[in-house]
Amino acid sequence: MPTDISPSTRLRAWERAMEWPLAGAAVVFLGAYAWEVLTNAQGGAKEAAEFVIGAVWALFGVDYLVRLVLAPSRGRWFLHHLPDLAIIVLPILRPLRLLRLVTLVSIMQRSAGTALRGRITLYTAGSATLLIFTSALAALDAERHEPGSSIQSFGQALWWALTTITTVGYGDTFPASTQGRFIAALLMIGGVALAGVVTATLASWIVSLVEEENAEQEAATQAQVAALQQQVSELSERIDRLLKVPDSGR
Amino acid sequence: MPTDISPSTRLRAWERAMEWPLAGAAVVFLGAYAWEVLTNAQGGAKEAAEFVIGAVWALFGVDYLVRLVLAPSRGRWFLHHLPDLAIIVLPILRPLRLLRLVTLVSIMQRSAGTALRGRITLYTAGSATLLIFTSALAALDAERHEPGSSIQSFGQALWWALTTITTVGYGDTFPASTQGRFIAALLMIGGVALAGVVTATLASWIVSLVEEENAEQEAATQAQVAALQQQVSELSERIDRLLKVPDSGR
Amino acid sequence: MPTDISPSTRLRAWERAMEWPLAGAAVVFLGAYAWEVLTNAQGGAKEAAEFVIGAVWALFGVDYLVRLVLAPSRGRWFLHHLPDLAIIVLPILRPLRLLRLVTLVSIMQRSAGTALRGRITLYTAGSATLLIFTSALAALDAERHEPGSSIQSFGQALWWALTTITTVGYGDTFPASTQGRFIAALLMIGGVALAGVVTATLASWIVSLVEEENAEQEAATQAQVAALQQQVSELSERIDRLLKVPDSGR
Amino acid sequence: MPTDISPSTRLRAWERAMEWPLAGAAVVFLGAYAWEVLTNAQGGAKEAAEFVIGAVWALFGVDYLVRLVLAPSRGRWFLHHLPDLAIIVLPILRPLRLLRLVTLVSIMQRSAGTALRGRITLYTAGSATLLIFTSALAALDAERHEPGSSIQSFGQALWWALTTITTVGYGDTFPASTQGRFIAALLMIGGVALAGVVTATLASWIVSLVEEENAEQEAATQAQVAALQQQVSELSERIDRLLKVPDSGR
Repeated sequence: MPTDISPSTRLRAWERAMEWPLAGAAVVFLGAYAWEVLTNAQGGAKEAAEFVIGAVWALFGVDYLVRLVLAPSRGRWFLHHLPDLAIIVLPILRPLRLLRLVTLVSIMQRSAGTALRGRITLYTAGSATLLIFTSALAALDAERHEPGSSIQSFGQALWWALTTITTVGYGDTFPASTQGRFIAALLMIGGVALAGVVTATLASWIVSLVEEENAEQEAATQAQVAALQQQVSELSERIDRLLKVPDSGR
Repeated sequence: MPTDISPSTRLRAWERAMEWPLAGAAVVFLGAYAWEVLTNAQGGAKEAAEFVIGAVWALFGVDYLVRLVLAPSRGRWFLHHLPDLAIIVLPILRPLRLLRLVTLVSIMQRSAGTALRGRITLYTAGSATLLIFTSALAALDAERHEPGSSIQSFGQALWWALTTITTVGYGDTFPASTQGRFIAALLMIGGVALAGVVTATLASWIVSLVEEENAEQEAATQAQVAALQQQVSELSERIDRLLKVPDSGR
Repeated sequence: MPTDISPSTRLRAWERAMEWPLAGAAVVFLGAYAWEVLTNAQGGAKEAAEFVIGAVWALFGVDYLVRLVLAPSRGRWFLHHLPDLAIIVLPILRPLRLLRLVTLVSIMQRSAGTALRGRITLYTAGSATLLIFTSALAALDAERHEPGSSIQSFGQALWWALTTITTVGYGDTFPASTQGRFIAALLMIGGVALAGVVTATLASWIVSLVEEENAEQEAATQAQVAALQQQVSELSERIDRLLKVPDSGR
Repeated sequence: MPTDISPSTRLRAWERAMEWPLAGAAVVFLGAYAWEVLTNAQGGAKEAAEFVIGAVWALFGVDYLVRLVLAPSRGRWFLHHLPDLAIIVLPILRPLRLLRLVTLVSIMQRSAGTALRGRITLYTAGSATLLIFTSALAALDAERHEPGSSIQSFGQALWWALTTITTVGYGDTFPASTQGRFIAALLMIGGVALAGVVTATLASWIVSLVEEENAEQEAATQAQVAALQQQVSELSERIDRLLKVPDSGR
């Protein structure tokens, strides 16, 4: 029994080992969920889809429990991972399990290895697409049987998700059920964050462009000052030789 | 009588002493106000809630007067604290007294002692949640008896507050009364500020991430230049010794 | 005749001399325009208001012509001041003459002499308030007689202006006439610029707060490097003395 | 046959040679498309307009093929230019061919040669105007024959495009057809990007204004440190002379 391995190391090893399986499970979940919602599956088809979704849910639950057990201080880990618990326990938050797919985006981009701003752009575009698609699915699921709701097809749901995440909000389509409004809240928060990331990345880019344009005015770099320090060091050594030469010369 | 203590010191001492009691009073106010609005209290229940709200109002009024008396230059203090006066005197601005609760968020985070961007995030999330909850309460209070208004339940009021602060604005729910529109104005300004803080914090974060990525290109720090100054100082001292050695040696 | 004074100096002298009178004329214009629109003036009252508005228009026209004559290169000045011409010539842009009042905000803040971010905040708040108030007036003027328009009172016009500049856009009030939509376009552009200025000022503030927090990591200032240059200069002088001492000692 | 010229050089030469012709073709395309949509051309007139549009399409197709053939690694070029292919092949994306006109804005500003922030402002204003105009045309084309659609005239289409790109979204006009919603999606993404560029440019401007205000606190520039390095170099040379003088003097 490897009792000499620290718990936090084992927790991290578990998380690394489960990264791909959980992302794969989320893809399966997305497929089953999309199929169930888009075909408005009934009877045996619905049961089959729900079985797959239930299996993924069980896997997520087991992962949560194993991580709780492996955590060095369980109380603290529990408090810091309340959202994980909420996603597993509350049926209304079921679509949020797809957020695990964002991990997939981050795994993919890790292997790409581009520059930071490129990675942020890729991550933002990936997350926004996933958020729009998942929210449209979940909203259609929640609103389809709501009387008088304006979200009745996947096209309308996608259109609604797009007008919401960009904060345009025409008001021709909007959720009427409580569950639909929860999904809308997440989309809106995502929209504010999305606009923020786009603007912040552009700002960082423009600042560096302006700096490059007048390179003379560019801030002194640490490399430059380090070179100067080297220069002064060499000067110091020569002075030391000077201090010794007169002595020895006398 | 402590006449030898400066008025500004006494003002600050009063403000520090009243920080917790006023935040506590605001919590009591929030409880009584939420209870009155959510239960649509009538008769004796309404009178009891109004009595508690009146008591908190009196405490806020006394605090205002004491601060006015203690202020070193009362005219200037009066001009700089006109919003405080407006919140106490104008009944329409009554819900704004809950802004005092933002102080509570700032007290809580002071003890947490996290890094600046973490504190801004916590403060923004806390203020936004409080603003949405309070505005929903106040809008429900103002709109409930307005004929033809679309805000008739707390759920609708929360949904309206969320679509407003994120500037989505579907238009399925919106205030129709003058008081409701004043509350909406505050929420909209809050929404613009919220998006601004989110974006600005992200921008500051991305700028520092980009800088960290190419550390060689990072701006020279004051610590680095200070180290260089120390190096040159030591060089100077050696030259001084050199200047003395030949003299004494001759 | 002061023919020895350069045209550009005379242009600048004229502009400085006219700053206050034109701002004053804009205030008179705002008063007459607001009175005409708010009271829905008819007959003699309308004529009186239109006379005052006409007089201000004539003053603006004279100012435009004088500046055109005084300009060193008239063709270039003409091209760079096409918006000024449009505001004077096109009746539809009449409310834009009030933009001259923004000058008033800038005169006021010049005397205040606060720090840059404070001045930007003051300027933004002043411009936004003025833009909302003026747009509401102009929209009410344009929409009042439009059949089926939802802007029929000054309260509705203010409410519409607020939902537009914050880009919330419920859709309960919106302009239906072409002139009203031109005013809305200016408000929307103003809204995007307003959100931009708020966010940018916050970003600049947060960046400097983060820098202050870890002062050791703060970028080396020009003052610091200048001090270092002084130190090296003094070292140089000592070396010079050293170079002479051996010579004279021989 | 110039086989000794590298393919990538020939690709670049082709792209430079085609820059003006393609921008000119896009202008012709815009004219024919605008004329067809605005006059709601039928019969022979429609055929003439479609012929011009077809000719421009053929030119774009030829340009695409030539670039594909000239590309050093065709597979990679193909993958990186999938959007170009989509614009040519998918009829629904036909209006996007006008994006080529953005090149025109970039050619114009290259000759202007102003400072970076000025160029960004010009580019943003030009692109936004072009995007609003083109989207309005395309939306009118798509929505005119849609039953119950609220976009029935070019004025309504322009108004819709403006409320969408600024993310106001009143909801008085909105697309009902699938093609109209695709155009709306591009406008919304353009709106988020537009707000981002405006904010980012303002942020970069305010940051540099704040820095200028307290020049003493300004970050040390590379030029300043380079001057210091020069100073230390000269000091070094003098020390070298000092090291030689005592030797030779003895």
